[in-house]
Amino acid sequence: MSAERSIELARVFKAIGEPVRLRLLSLIASHAGGEACVCDLTGAFELSGPTISHHLKVLREAGIIEGERRGTWIYYRVRPETLSAVSSVLTPAEVLA
Amino acid sequence: MSAERSIELARVFKAIGEPVRLRLLSLIASHAGGEACVCDLTGAFELSGPTISHHLKVLREAGIIEGERRGTWIYYRVRPETLSAVSSVLTPAEVLA
Repeated sequence: MSAERSIELARVFKAIGEPVRLRLLSLIASHAGGEACVCDLTGAFELSGPTISHHLKVLREAGIIEGERRGTWIYYRVRPETLSAVSSVLTPAEVLA
Repeated sequence: MSAERSIELARVFKAIGEPVRLRLLSLIASHAGGEACVCDLTGAFELSGPTISHHLKVLREAGIIEGERRGTWIYYRVRPETLSAVSSVLTPAEVLA
């Protein structure tokens, strides 16, 4: 694994290396239609809207989720290509690469 | 995903959410015999032995690698069960669980 690739991948792992963000990822993926807005997510946490929004921003900047504004809300969905990329790094064949 | 499980899994992701540790994981997995000592790893980095040892300790405490002392050195190998557990979290079926 090159130093450059390790920097790129570590960024994704770091973003999900935080319990609230990992649960947000799980909640978005499992929400009806595979997408969710902040309004759908705050109920699961004892956290303010702005705090949830901050964690969503970190996930978005790491390329794990993407958001689309529709009306008042931004709807977030998981980017499966990022998940597969980091997941494959953890399988023996890729770890060996 | 329960809050407890998210804390447990996030700990593993956080440990590999650092470029040096991600490369160490890759180097150990790809080393002859699937194990490596600090003496095998320092050459790949512009880092001191103690710094490499610190990163190995973080990986070990997160359950990603395990070490066995033989003579002067501790030999580290990857724990595939931890990698499969976190890898499966990133696959759609598990993200949905």
